[in-house]
Amino acid sequence: MRYVRYEVDGQARLGAMIDSDIVDIEAAWPEAPRTMRDLIGADPAVHATLADRLVQSGAARTPLADCKLLTPLPDPGKIVCLGLNYADHAKEGGHAVPEYPALFLRATSSMIGPQDPMILPECSEQLDYEAELTIVIGRRCRHVSAADAASVIFGYTAFNDGSVRHYQRLTAQWTAGKNFDGTGALGPCIVTADDLPDEASGLKIQTRLNGNVMQDSNTDQMIFGAFRTVEILSEIMTLEPGDLIAMGTPAGVGHARRPQVWMRDGDTVEVEIEGIGTLRNPVVAEKVTA
Amino acid sequence: MRYVRYEVDGQARLGAMIDSDIVDIEAAWPEAPRTMRDLIGADPAVHATLADRLVQSGAARTPLADCKLLTPLPDPGKIVCLGLNYADHAKEGGHAVPEYPALFLRATSSMIGPQDPMILPECSEQLDYEAELTIVIGRRCRHVSAADAASVIFGYTAFNDGSVRHYQRLTAQWTAGKNFDGTGALGPCIVTADDLPDEASGLKIQTRLNGNVMQDSNTDQMIFGAFRTVEILSEIMTLEPGDLIAMGTPAGVGHARRPQVWMRDGDTVEVEIEGIGTLRNPVVAEKVTA
Repeated sequence: MRYVRYEVDGQARLGAMIDSDIVDIEAAWPEAPRTMRDLIGADPAVHATLADRLVQSGAARTPLADCKLLTPLPDPGKIVCLGLNYADHAKEGGHAVPEYPALFLRATSSMIGPQDPMILPECSEQLDYEAELTIVIGRRCRHVSAADAASVIFGYTAFNDGSVRHYQRLTAQWTAGKNFDGTGALGPCIVTADDLPDEASGLKIQTRLNGNVMQDSNTDQMIFGAFRTVEILSEIMTLEPGDLIAMGTPAGVGHARRPQVWMRDGDTVEVEIEGIGTLRNPVVAEKVTA
Repeated sequence: MRYVRYEVDGQARLGAMIDSDIVDIEAAWPEAPRTMRDLIGADPAVHATLADRLVQSGAARTPLADCKLLTPLPDPGKIVCLGLNYADHAKEGGHAVPEYPALFLRATSSMIGPQDPMILPECSEQLDYEAELTIVIGRRCRHVSAADAASVIFGYTAFNDGSVRHYQRLTAQWTAGKNFDGTGALGPCIVTADDLPDEASGLKIQTRLNGNVMQDSNTDQMIFGAFRTVEILSEIMTLEPGDLIAMGTPAGVGHARRPQVWMRDGDTVEVEIEGIGTLRNPVVAEKVTA
């Protein structure tokens, strides 16, 4: 199943994508969870019933093309991000292939939806894209082995880990450059794990800037796969329903190109992952009011 | 005013410290905000009324010594942490004095209360303490100048930024070692800014391990003060009521000592900041159930 949040008459609704339509979840099953966070954390029996109701429902369908999609998860828990998780990207940045993932966190304040403007901050010209597969945790857990990790993963989504490189490199800690308001695009939907290959491996992943292909790889190139990553992180921390784990980006980012490529006001950046969908964000320069 | 959360008959209550007693806020003013997050974000008029009611109230007082204190803020927003914000601590770690603060984030899953066990994880012996002054943001804001920063700060609290050094240094990113469950102690209370010196400068800050003084400094030694830090962070991100900013630690941490000092099962670690109070956490070894 593919779950979305979308806007109807200024209200956020929870929906499911069926073919190229969206079915309103409340219309299909009035007793369904009302928020994506609640849906993610619900019992398997709830998911099974919901799937039945969605398929059998006579609830009206809205063509996807007519819907404004919102971030699928407006209130994520932790947003844990892996750096350097594709060997080719580690190499292009001058880094060794890591034996342990470089980790950082993003705050919810930095996140936007799949069609929202991505904000180029006034203080830097170095806004860069990063296409990333992202795990959506479905069950509270700690100390989960890779062999058991599938049981705690609700599904997957796509992420553009927009990075202000100048600030990312002001110190050895990347956090500043990874947390500008309006730079982290999530969506377009959350796909349940059963609708994707094992640990979402083998999916094409691409970034296009104004239609030009900038990153073009496959999730089978990740150094740490989804299951091993859950094992690594759950050694450190309790994972909870609605936590996100962004799995790092392949080669082709703008700061490693010669000449370097930065996103500018008026650009359109797209991140597409096979089986999940496309984030399509216009880049808009911040205007700071005095 | 000094606000706390404490436990009565297994229930969390919101209270105010008056002299060496705790006054139950709901008993003093039934219309008062019911959570610390709501209290922090409330209008100044609410705070003024609450202060009046607390002082005038005949509500029963409970001696502080008889109360189990809980984390003052169980649902913080962002937890932004500065590294290397005392010149002597930067030096002991072999770092230059920074021109921009090294930033990382902690997740709520790593946080504990002022009297809770601090957990030594099974996977490492390198659990270290870090005493830190912490800002509590009171108003949603972006692009705040240092001159205006006082208007967005609700108050201050103390923090023991417990760090698993082995994991902190597995990669260049400190996040792993800063996010183990049960390692970040917060409290004991949140002191409103008007009860402390300007930007909480000039306060003695100390860590004691089993009664031995390990860190002993003053918040006037911070490289980036509270107001300048709000300016720096709000250039990057929207700050919101209930966000925390941990201001870094002075010299004397265990990993920089020769011989190194790690916290062990059975130890007691105390972090005290003048005018705020003392965190007192027993150190307890994790027992991973197979």
